[in-house]
Amino acid sequence: MFVRKELQRLRDSIDNLDAALVHLLAERFKCTQEVGRLKAEYQLPPADPAREAAQIRRLRALAEESKLDPVFAERFLNFIIAEVVRHHELIASNHAAAKRD
Amino acid sequence: MFVRKELQRLRDSIDNLDAALVHLLAERFKCTQEVGRLKAEYQLPPADPAREAAQIRRLRALAEESKLDPVFAERFLNFIIAEVVRHHELIASNHAAAKRD
Repeated sequence: MFVRKELQRLRDSIDNLDAALVHLLAERFKCTQEVGRLKAEYQLPPADPAREAAQIRRLRALAEESKLDPVFAERFLNFIIAEVVRHHELIASNHAAAKRD
Repeated sequence: MFVRKELQRLRDSIDNLDAALVHLLAERFKCTQEVGRLKAEYQLPPADPAREAAQIRRLRALAEESKLDPVFAERFLNFIIAEVVRHHELIASNHAAAKRD
């Protein structure tokens, strides 16, 4: 059946891309965890609005270049950043608790 | 200043990873747009719960392997799938409108 075979071919590519996305995201969170530890140690605020605005501008431009919907790219970055800020707050409170103990 | 230099080094890596993520996402949506066109043409439903459940199981396993939070990996996939289903519904309604005209 043509349609089943075609769907399978596309889904195989989607599965490969998803594996790559997961591995890149894992590396990205390793970097942001390190950023979180530095921020906690040097008492810098967990969120950084100027950096976030620059990231959004850059990602929208990259999205246009690669023909991804820039609105979706921005929502994607906000989704990731929300998780990063959650991690940073957790690291900061663990850091403060460790200092108190 | 050590902390500024370290932050910059980490942010440079984050920016590189974000560029790779955007380009992979662009390719992933190319695949799912093709899936959407096939589904519209062969009148298959836009969402596919069995496929989605298998994807979630697989991504959680990949996340554990690469040390990404599996709960976050599942939320990430749901975030992407919501956008894909939105595209599929749009393709299906455009397809139906083109047939009517």
